[in-house]
Amino acid sequence: MRESFRFPIRVYYEDTDAGGVVYYANYLKYMERARTEWLASLGCELSTLESVEGIVFVVHRVEIDYRNPAKLGEKIDATLTLVELNRASLAVEQDVVRGDALLTHARVALACVDRTSWRPKRIPSSLHHRLERLP
Amino acid sequence: MRESFRFPIRVYYEDTDAGGVVYYANYLKYMERARTEWLASLGCELSTLESVEGIVFVVHRVEIDYRNPAKLGEKIDATLTLVELNRASLAVEQDVVRGDALLTHARVALACVDRTSWRPKRIPSSLHHRLERLP
Amino acid sequence: MRESFRFPIRVYYEDTDAGGVVYYANYLKYMERARTEWLASLGCELSTLESVEGIVFVVHRVEIDYRNPAKLGEKIDATLTLVELNRASLAVEQDVVRGDALLTHARVALACVDRTSWRPKRIPSSLHHRLERLP
Amino acid sequence: MRESFRFPIRVYYEDTDAGGVVYYANYLKYMERARTEWLASLGCELSTLESVEGIVFVVHRVEIDYRNPAKLGEKIDATLTLVELNRASLAVEQDVVRGDALLTHARVALACVDRTSWRPKRIPSSLHHRLERLP
Repeated sequence: MRESFRFPIRVYYEDTDAGGVVYYANYLKYMERARTEWLASLGCELSTLESVEGIVFVVHRVEIDYRNPAKLGEKIDATLTLVELNRASLAVEQDVVRGDALLTHARVALACVDRTSWRPKRIPSSLHHRLERLP
Repeated sequence: MRESFRFPIRVYYEDTDAGGVVYYANYLKYMERARTEWLASLGCELSTLESVEGIVFVVHRVEIDYRNPAKLGEKIDATLTLVELNRASLAVEQDVVRGDALLTHARVALACVDRTSWRPKRIPSSLHHRLERLP
Repeated sequence: MRESFRFPIRVYYEDTDAGGVVYYANYLKYMERARTEWLASLGCELSTLESVEGIVFVVHRVEIDYRNPAKLGEKIDATLTLVELNRASLAVEQDVVRGDALLTHARVALACVDRTSWRPKRIPSSLHHRLERLP
Repeated sequence: MRESFRFPIRVYYEDTDAGGVVYYANYLKYMERARTEWLASLGCELSTLESVEGIVFVVHRVEIDYRNPAKLGEKIDATLTLVELNRASLAVEQDVVRGDALLTHARVALACVDRTSWRPKRIPSSLHHRLERLP
């Protein structure tokens, strides 16, 4: 039930602030990109989940530690490991790293909900099976 | 058919980039805030236009000149003047200013479209009347 | 050492995503606006802290719970209560609310650091005194 | 003096708004990413230009037409063609396309300026030579 996924990111001006580093909220964007590409790598496009299965994954809790800043032009990675899997929710640990250096670490808890009512809904079984079988 | 509208804005870290100034795309956010509040001042909430009238205003062209940068913490204004009004479209001139100093000037052309089909649709008559009668 | 501060915010298109609600990272922008205005209300402008005192406040940890979504056009508030004050760091509890309804709750830990070296630095004594004396 | 450059982009939630499409200001982010990668492909990293040559490229005018919207999850491209080259400025034409479909077209004028004074400064000769020799 574990899988390490890694997604490369480049820091552009849009990501930085007047402090010369990546703006603190933007690491959440990086992490969401990695989650999207991770699900896509498992055959699940978010737009298909929504239009076909009628579900969306919503974040309900984030704990994030900022250790070292990323800077303009740097090439960094957002990583992901599945750490919890339930019927209608899951949790991932996500790092932003520059080579071996840890920049930011987060634990992100997500709920699978009906796209209209936002009520909890089971993770589609085909996706759930794939998540269970992760090495 | 003219009206000058002014909306105050404060520059936060989220708006700036590593160059120490407001990121160039973010002036479009400021201008959209001013358009939203201008319509609200005329009794038109965007969310009501969408849910009740079934229309949205979409930007189809922007010409924007960057003269002087806005910086962290500054209190600036986004202004708006209606310069063109048609059945299903309009155009506004918008400045971002710091006191008397012009920072950015734009002309923004908007189309009124059906929220679903994105086909042109007449501006609701009550709003059109109010826009025509602007001093 | 407690103080409740409240800052009004309007939800614009820029804040929302294709799910029809405020994008999860953007609540951190709202919270940062409230922190900036709270410090300003205590006589501390961030740009002055940086240029005169040579310090910046950097976020080193956020725990955030998403309870209910904010939507386009809504008028909401970001609140702030100081919950921890040390020589070179502090922590605040921050809510985003719509009227009485809690939308998002966070605890944000900040460090006072040298603007160049990013090493911990004492909170300027005039600001520290004001923070200590908060009701 | 012409060169067509193409940079792939994926549309994430962060890019979209409650209208279900890419927020209009965010196309400027896509275009800036393409400009950054284009310069990098010519051996010029923005961060090096700034720290070594003491210059930055600032946008002073954008004309942008919005034709068709990009949507969540789509894979699109930002293209770039150099159309004007002067001693201290240049202009590029930039499209955002989905396959053969044109979504957004812009002309972006940039000035080369001193990083501190923001006064016009010659484009570094090594870069200028490379730009002149583009096919």
